[in-house]
Amino acid sequence: MTTFAGDIDEKVATMSNEEQKFEEASIEKRFEGKSVPTWQKQITVRAILVSLLLSVLFTFIVMKLNLTTGIVPSLNVSAGLLGFFFVKTWTRLLAKSGFVTQPFTRQENTVIQTCVVASSSIAFSGGFGSYLFAMSPTIAKQLPDDNNGGMDVKNLSLGWMIAFLFVVSFLGLFSVVPLRKIMIVDFRLTYPTGTATAHLINSFHTRQGVKLAKKQVHALGKFLSFSFLWGVFQWFFTAGDACGFSSFPTFGLEAYQRMFYFDFSATYVGVGMICPHIINVSMLIGGILSWGVMWPFIEDKKGDWYSANLKQSSLHGLQGYKLFIAIAMILGDGLYKFVKVLGRTLYGLYNQFITKDCSVPSDDPNRLLPPTISFDDKRRTEMFLKDQIPSWFAIAGYVTIAIISTVIIPYIFHQLKWYHIVCIYIIAPALAFCNAYGCGLTDMSLASTYGKLAIFTIGAWAGAANGGVLAGLAACGVMMNIVSTASDLMQDFKTGYMTLASPKSMFVSQVIGTTMGCIISPCVFWLFYTAFHTLGESGSAYPAPYALFYRNIAILGVEGISALPKNCLVLCCWFFVGAIIINFVRDLAGNKYAKFIPVPMAMAIPFYIGSNFAIDMCVGSLILFVWQKIDRVKADAFGIAVASGLICGDGIWSLPSSFLALGGVQPPICMKFLSRATNAKVDAFLMES
Amino acid sequence: MTTFAGDIDEKVATMSNEEQKFEEASIEKRFEGKSVPTWQKQITVRAILVSLLLSVLFTFIVMKLNLTTGIVPSLNVSAGLLGFFFVKTWTRLLAKSGFVTQPFTRQENTVIQTCVVASSSIAFSGGFGSYLFAMSPTIAKQLPDDNNGGMDVKNLSLGWMIAFLFVVSFLGLFSVVPLRKIMIVDFRLTYPTGTATAHLINSFHTRQGVKLAKKQVHALGKFLSFSFLWGVFQWFFTAGDACGFSSFPTFGLEAYQRMFYFDFSATYVGVGMICPHIINVSMLIGGILSWGVMWPFIEDKKGDWYSANLKQSSLHGLQGYKLFIAIAMILGDGLYKFVKVLGRTLYGLYNQFITKDCSVPSDDPNRLLPPTISFDDKRRTEMFLKDQIPSWFAIAGYVTIAIISTVIIPYIFHQLKWYHIVCIYIIAPALAFCNAYGCGLTDMSLASTYGKLAIFTIGAWAGAANGGVLAGLAACGVMMNIVSTASDLMQDFKTGYMTLASPKSMFVSQVIGTTMGCIISPCVFWLFYTAFHTLGESGSAYPAPYALFYRNIAILGVEGISALPKNCLVLCCWFFVGAIIINFVRDLAGNKYAKFIPVPMAMAIPFYIGSNFAIDMCVGSLILFVWQKIDRVKADAFGIAVASGLICGDGIWSLPSSFLALGGVQPPICMKFLSRATNAKVDAFLMES
Repeated sequence: MTTFAGDIDEKVATMSNEEQKFEEASIEKRFEGKSVPTWQKQITVRAILVSLLLSVLFTFIVMKLNLTTGIVPSLNVSAGLLGFFFVKTWTRLLAKSGFVTQPFTRQENTVIQTCVVASSSIAFSGGFGSYLFAMSPTIAKQLPDDNNGGMDVKNLSLGWMIAFLFVVSFLGLFSVVPLRKIMIVDFRLTYPTGTATAHLINSFHTRQGVKLAKKQVHALGKFLSFSFLWGVFQWFFTAGDACGFSSFPTFGLEAYQRMFYFDFSATYVGVGMICPHIINVSMLIGGILSWGVMWPFIEDKKGDWYSANLKQSSLHGLQGYKLFIAIAMILGDGLYKFVKVLGRTLYGLYNQFITKDCSVPSDDPNRLLPPTISFDDKRRTEMFLKDQIPSWFAIAGYVTIAIISTVIIPYIFHQLKWYHIVCIYIIAPALAFCNAYGCGLTDMSLASTYGKLAIFTIGAWAGAANGGVLAGLAACGVMMNIVSTASDLMQDFKTGYMTLASPKSMFVSQVIGTTMGCIISPCVFWLFYTAFHTLGESGSAYPAPYALFYRNIAILGVEGISALPKNCLVLCCWFFVGAIIINFVRDLAGNKYAKFIPVPMAMAIPFYIGSNFAIDMCVGSLILFVWQKIDRVKADAFGIAVASGLICGDGIWSLPSSFLALGGVQPPICMKFLSRATNAKVDAFLMES
Repeated sequence: MTTFAGDIDEKVATMSNEEQKFEEASIEKRFEGKSVPTWQKQITVRAILVSLLLSVLFTFIVMKLNLTTGIVPSLNVSAGLLGFFFVKTWTRLLAKSGFVTQPFTRQENTVIQTCVVASSSIAFSGGFGSYLFAMSPTIAKQLPDDNNGGMDVKNLSLGWMIAFLFVVSFLGLFSVVPLRKIMIVDFRLTYPTGTATAHLINSFHTRQGVKLAKKQVHALGKFLSFSFLWGVFQWFFTAGDACGFSSFPTFGLEAYQRMFYFDFSATYVGVGMICPHIINVSMLIGGILSWGVMWPFIEDKKGDWYSANLKQSSLHGLQGYKLFIAIAMILGDGLYKFVKVLGRTLYGLYNQFITKDCSVPSDDPNRLLPPTISFDDKRRTEMFLKDQIPSWFAIAGYVTIAIISTVIIPYIFHQLKWYHIVCIYIIAPALAFCNAYGCGLTDMSLASTYGKLAIFTIGAWAGAANGGVLAGLAACGVMMNIVSTASDLMQDFKTGYMTLASPKSMFVSQVIGTTMGCIISPCVFWLFYTAFHTLGESGSAYPAPYALFYRNIAILGVEGISALPKNCLVLCCWFFVGAIIINFVRDLAGNKYAKFIPVPMAMAIPFYIGSNFAIDMCVGSLILFVWQKIDRVKADAFGIAVASGLICGDGIWSLPSSFLALGGVQPPICMKFLSRATNAKVDAFLMES
């Protein structure tokens, strides 16, 4: 799963290769001897503690990724691995101390997995890198025209963020529960990520799986330590702006000015190893196209296309082209995917109901029900239907929370009226169903597209004069949380189905995870926000590109496109259409050739933030590629573990590093890069003083 | 073999572990089918061309090492490997093109080996990092008291350096030839380095050896490329003093001021992998003791022990303590080793003659002749004695060259009179014999100790008023060349003996190699000298510490110790005695514990130049240590190849890098390290301008 904060979640079942080994005749037969604990026993104290620990870790990682590029790779596998590792260690330690402990079951592992995913997905859907941060004065002040008497700005504070998350995050949960049986048992949707995770967990609990898992954990640990220590080492040399390895002009100062350099980020090398090659290459192509060709070209038109007296950061100048062309491409890509997935969803549903009518097996290739039910499916269905959550409970929960949030949200955002919210809550379940169904079919979640839909409609409804920008962003938050939770948790239910975890324990675990997430995520964001003063500023270590994108989308929706600089609209149209065409060509080309056609979404990201992350990710890709050439089996078995280690180590370091920043401890040394001429001047200056 | 330019060559037969595998029942029986080519056929055009190529490469490497720390590890193995690789490639290419070529024999391989060693050893014994460079104004001007009206200074120029080398370098060759049979056949001295090299060459020409050699060459090539590219990459960031990775304050700026940092030098990491662990650790201990404890302590006495108004570089201040304490330790170590090796030599000779008298085998453990002669020895002795070089030829050669050089040298150094030279030439053969014998027993060459002896005696004889300092240094050159050549070439004869190479072909190859060396070495030095303007300056990239040491030894010998700062003499005495005691304890402790007692010689080097090289070398040691723990067999088989690759790659890069410097092409970027406060000031300055 590679998640773009901007538009669409393109989930890739990365473990499939490795795990397909375990996908043999019957998995449940191997587990036949083992009894399944009752749902209460699946949720243990140790599972909750481990989940808490991992939630904090993964929230840090997701937050960091949110605030740098907005590209969040799937951490499900790392969560699974680390969860397994912690509980196994715990069990062994207790056993050695003479305590008798409950054995570690795959159901418990699934509970941990679900809890961590529920919690850390709020770091993404909470909008800290997108709609929520877009409301802040930090982002607003970067847009010079955007001073609607403070109507469109909301000062961030920990209190209202937690309150907001609590009233919107549980709705998705309740909207999903009644659909559970239909999606998993009746429709038998695949949910590739959920399935892959289930295979992983199942494999951990077979004998040979335990061995492999141990080795993977070992590799993960090694690279985690390396990445952490590398983070620590780098820190010492960053006493100032443009200091340290993250400003290393690897390809010369000229290229550095064009944001083209390798910045030694372990995180993004790891992310590159997890993302498909084409995503990384697309980013690089986008970076070269924009910073290498287009921006220099537009810069030449300075004084003609736009005034030469503008500040560098002005959106009427070059910055505006960068931003709006990126947004145009993201919207074009989003629109195409929306139409496509909605089309497939409707077509799939149509077939679904056709097949339900005729009980006789037919040869219709669109039929989703298997002609005979296997032993595995029988056993799983039986377990899945044993612990029922009554539908009235889910519906009552949804209505109750909807009422509460309709009352509370207007207090938080006075620009968003109660009737806007009621409207969203009436439409939301339908969209949640669509998203969960589409995700089951294609492994893609359209949460952020639905969010943008809300920005446009509610923003326009509220109107520019009444703070439509802020209303739109808040509406986006409400919508995104419901829709995103729906697809994420349905994936978890699929995992639970395949590991015989009880739906009740899954639900409770999701409630616990969501509660954790509603508290942890804002706190972690708050830590970043107070520790790093340049957070959200273009060109800083944490540019949070999507925050600016979202705010501009909201402004565009409410105020139209009149403010764009000369020729910008034409260019935007070209790129909007271009994104649609490229996507169409990708779909036409078929699986064989599609992997050589760039992904417009990925191409758009470096348009605004530059190519340095793209280069890191391409390095990751290259490492994996060479590794696969040298030893395919090993690379497939350990690639993800190594990548996770790189990501997690750097992520762990962001915890102490932000505390250091908070405590006013600054790095002692600046590793600076100067041209020869400048260096001579500086040396002369230093000799004098 | 780890060679210290300063005092003593402690040769360590590094390949012994690996090669002992091939030391089986009989080596010659394996080669029984293969005929040995005549001595003329052992010297081929391809062998000479490959030797030339490798000579240039190794001269660059040795010169770089000479001018940075003066620590030169054994490159015999790399020379063997690369020689084998080049000729094999050549043969294969020609064979593919349809040419019929002479097969590549181990005799030819030995010829290449001998030629390269003869040539590149002149880079060391030519004194470009020691006595010869010590004569230059560059070094002289660093010693403020040292202005004897230009009598003690000689401007360097390519012409006289080549002439000087030609008239002194061949003497060693002729003095060795008559001793050949006595040392190798009669005394059966071991010459560990020569033996190890012979084993290596023999192993290359067996079937399983070819496979291993190919893998080793592959490893060497990989690390050579890496090291070369790393050198190229580093270059771009060195636009100025204290720029780039070689000034990386790895352990903070405070430690950097005390020369305590890892400077990312691939060469010294490689050197560290070849040197025994204790050498590397000794250097680190020496560095910590001096720069961490002693120098800060002495610096506190500023104004008391020495005037506070002195320039930083003044030898009356802290710099004087650093220099003279290092020299004291080097002299103490040298004296101890001299007495020890001389004692063993005399004792060995005494036993030798005792045994010769009694033809009946006895149980005397000091007997050096084996009771029965093996098949190998029979065959080798037969081949070794087949192509005789008549003694009259050797003696006539020696006398002729001695006469020529007695005439020419006073023209080059008018401070050195003809009777000084005659005197040296009368004593030299005896000392050459001693050194060759001692080296055969202990694998240690005392060349530089004999050189220092010449500095003291001839310097005092000439007298301060008549340019005694320069006379001493010149005499050192004459003496060192003879003595060093004697031991180096006897090692080669041992190698030739064990690979059935003809003494005639060995002699011719040595003549060719020496001729090459006499031209290549001064040229390479000249390239460094003209390309790097800070060459020889303390604190620069090429401090050439031994040049300063040698000059000060000469001054000490001629002018006494009156100029030393307060308490310096006392400290020097302590360290002189300390070095002797530590050496004595090392010898008493036996092999088991000696490896835990530091080597005083190695401890003294960082006293003057700082610990950065020591840290590089310890990193090399650590890498090898960890590698050995993980996979002993692999580490033993490939350790030297990897180390050689690291050293050679960096060495190759010094060729283009010095041409770039000569061509006035300067690196574009400075990677600078500033403290936070300084960085703030610099940023403010850069904003203004």
